[in-house]
Amino acid sequence: MTRIDDLPVRDELRGQSPYGAPQLDVPVRLNTNENPYPLPEPLVARIAERVAEAARHLNRYPDRDAVELRDRLAAYLTDTTGHAVTGAQVWAANGSNEVLQQLLQTFGGPGRSALGFEPSYSMHALISRGTGTRWISGPRRDDFTIDVAAAERAVAEHRPDVVFICSPNNPTGTAVSAETVLALHDAAQAVRPTMVVVDEAYVEFSHHASLLPLIDGRPHLVISRTMSKAFGAAGLRLGYLAADPAVVDAVQLVRLPYHLSAVTQATALACLEHTETLLGYVAQLKAERDRVVAALRAEGVEVVDSDANFIQFGRFDDTHAVWQALLDRGVLVRDNGVPGWLRVTAGTPAENDAFLGAVRTALKQN
Amino acid sequence: MTRIDDLPVRDELRGQSPYGAPQLDVPVRLNTNENPYPLPEPLVARIAERVAEAARHLNRYPDRDAVELRDRLAAYLTDTTGHAVTGAQVWAANGSNEVLQQLLQTFGGPGRSALGFEPSYSMHALISRGTGTRWISGPRRDDFTIDVAAAERAVAEHRPDVVFICSPNNPTGTAVSAETVLALHDAAQAVRPTMVVVDEAYVEFSHHASLLPLIDGRPHLVISRTMSKAFGAAGLRLGYLAADPAVVDAVQLVRLPYHLSAVTQATALACLEHTETLLGYVAQLKAERDRVVAALRAEGVEVVDSDANFIQFGRFDDTHAVWQALLDRGVLVRDNGVPGWLRVTAGTPAENDAFLGAVRTALKQN
Repeated sequence: MTRIDDLPVRDELRGQSPYGAPQLDVPVRLNTNENPYPLPEPLVARIAERVAEAARHLNRYPDRDAVELRDRLAAYLTDTTGHAVTGAQVWAANGSNEVLQQLLQTFGGPGRSALGFEPSYSMHALISRGTGTRWISGPRRDDFTIDVAAAERAVAEHRPDVVFICSPNNPTGTAVSAETVLALHDAAQAVRPTMVVVDEAYVEFSHHASLLPLIDGRPHLVISRTMSKAFGAAGLRLGYLAADPAVVDAVQLVRLPYHLSAVTQATALACLEHTETLLGYVAQLKAERDRVVAALRAEGVEVVDSDANFIQFGRFDDTHAVWQALLDRGVLVRDNGVPGWLRVTAGTPAENDAFLGAVRTALKQN
Repeated sequence: MTRIDDLPVRDELRGQSPYGAPQLDVPVRLNTNENPYPLPEPLVARIAERVAEAARHLNRYPDRDAVELRDRLAAYLTDTTGHAVTGAQVWAANGSNEVLQQLLQTFGGPGRSALGFEPSYSMHALISRGTGTRWISGPRRDDFTIDVAAAERAVAEHRPDVVFICSPNNPTGTAVSAETVLALHDAAQAVRPTMVVVDEAYVEFSHHASLLPLIDGRPHLVISRTMSKAFGAAGLRLGYLAADPAVVDAVQLVRLPYHLSAVTQATALACLEHTETLLGYVAQLKAERDRVVAALRAEGVEVVDSDANFIQFGRFDDTHAVWQALLDRGVLVRDNGVPGWLRVTAGTPAENDAFLGAVRTALKQN
C-alpha cells in the first residue's frame, strides 16, 4: 500500500495530518460553533425554489462576479451596521477560509509574512503556511486581550505584510476595540504598507458594534465575514469580505474563475431574504450565551468574557480529562490547545442545560 | 480612487488582469465549451428535493470528506470505464480548477515546477503560477499531437515535479493515447518521482476510452475529471480526481476544511442519479460535433481532429477579424491565442447551423 510519505509531497507536508475537529456522533455537539437552529421551513422552501431556478441554467457557468449576491451582502452590511457599502466593496467565496486564502495569495505568499495574535483562529496560520506565507505568532495578554504596546513592538520587529485581528476572537470570545485596531493599523503602515484583516466571523453575536466603518479611507483594512454562524448556514460555505473596491479588484487576480457555484449563490440569496428571522435566532443565542456564562461562573468555573456564540472556560490542570468527562456524559466540546481552557458553543436551551449538567457532575468527579 | 497597484499586492500580480472569457450577451454563445442542453425538468425537481433535504441541516457543517458523493462518483467511473474504483480513490472539489490547485499545493509550490504541452488548458499554467509553482511550457507538433521523443527530452531537461497531459486537449480537441501517457509517465519517473496529471475534462466526448485504468499500480498518475461538461453542470462547479488512495489522503493535507458545500454535494448527487439521460445528450453532442467538423471541412476550413465537445478551426491570417465577423453575425467563439486558429463549442443543431451559416458568409467577405 502506498502511503502519503511515499509520494513526492512537499517536504513541509510530510508527517502532517489533515486539519479538522473530530466528528463524533454524540447527542450534544457543541464543538464547532455551529448555530443550533435549523433554517426555518419557509426558508428551506425558498432555497429549493431559487436553486431550482438556478438548476434550469446549470449547464451554463455561474455569474463569475456574483454581482447580485455581492449587492445583497452589501445591503445586509449597510442595514445592520448603518454604514453604507456597495457591491463593489464586497467579495464572496466558498467560506471565509477561501476569502482568507485569496487575500494571502494576493498580499502574502512566498517571501512574505503574516502576523496574528495567538491563540486565535488556527486557520489564519494554516492558510498562511498553505500559501507559502511565513507565519508570525504575535502576543496576547494572559486574559487574552491584545496589549497594544506589545503588539506594536511585534509589528515593528517582524514587519509583516498581513496582520490578522480576529474580533470576536476565536477561541477566546474576546472582542477587540476600534481603538486597538486603529492603533495596530497605523503602527503597521508606519513600518510598511500592510494589509490588516479583521476577521468578524462572529461579530453578530457581539456586545460591540462591527468595525466595518473603519474601512472608510483605509484601503489596507479588510473586514472578513461569514454566513456560517449568524445565518445558520455552515453547510453553505459562504464567506465574504468588505473593503476598498481596489481590494475586491485585486483578489480577482488570484481567484479561480467561476469559483462560486450557481447553487451556492442561489442558496445564499435565499438566506439573505430571511435575514430578520435568522437574526432573531442570533438574539436568542446571545441571551443563552450570557446565561451559560453566568451559570458557569456561579459554579466557580472561570470564563473569558465572550462576544461570540461560544465560551472559553477553565482553568483545568488536566484539560483532556475534563474534555473526556464531558464527552462521557454525551457532550462534545472543543480542546483548541489553549492550555487549561476548553471551548463550548452556545446551543439550544436544552443543549446548554445538558452541558451545564455535565460540567457540574464532571467537576465533582475530577 | 485607490487602484490595485496602489495596494501592496505581490509583484507578479502588478499590471495583470483577471482570467476569464469575455462574457458578451450574444444569441449564439459557443465560446466556453458549455453543454447547450439544460438539465431535464425531472432532474431539476430532484435537485430541489435533495437541496431542500440538505438545507434542513444547513446550520451544520457539511460532510468534510464528501463520502457519499465520492462513492457515487466512483460508481460512475466504474460503470462508464469498466474499471473498478472506490470512493477512497476519488476526491472532489469546487471545479477541477480547485482539484488542480490542491494537487499543485501538495506536489508543486515554491521551488518546484510543472510542465504542460502547449497550447493546452491555460489554467494549468495559471494555477501553477498561482501556487508558486514554476511553469514550463513543453512542446507539441504543428498538428497539436505530442511528440513523445521531444516530450521526453523536455522532461529530462527540466525535471518537472508535475506533468500535465490534457486529453482530449483543450483548445485543440486532440486525444492522447495510453502509449504516449505511459511513455511520458515512465520517462518522468526515470528522472525523479513525478506526479503525472491527466486532465480528462472532456473525455466523455472522445472517440477513445478513458485512461482511468492506467492509475492501477501507478500511484503517481492522477486522472482529473469534471461534471461541467458531460453532466451539463458548469454552474455546479464540481471537479474530481481518481488516483491511488494515498493521493486522496495527500490532498487532504492542503484542502480547506469543509471546502465542498452541502448544497453542492446534494446537487451533484442528484445529477449522478440522472447519468443515463445526461449521457444521452453527450451522444447527441458527439454526433453534432462530427457533423460540424465535416461541414467545416466541406467549406475548405481546416479542422483539428476533435475528441471533445469543441472544435479548433482555421487557419486564418487575421484570426481576430474572423472572430469579429462571426460575432457580428451573432455567434461568439473563442480566440485562445493559438495563432491562426479559433475554437467553437458544439451546440444544439440550431446553434451549430447558425455558426456554420456565419462561417460561410464571413469567409466570403474576408
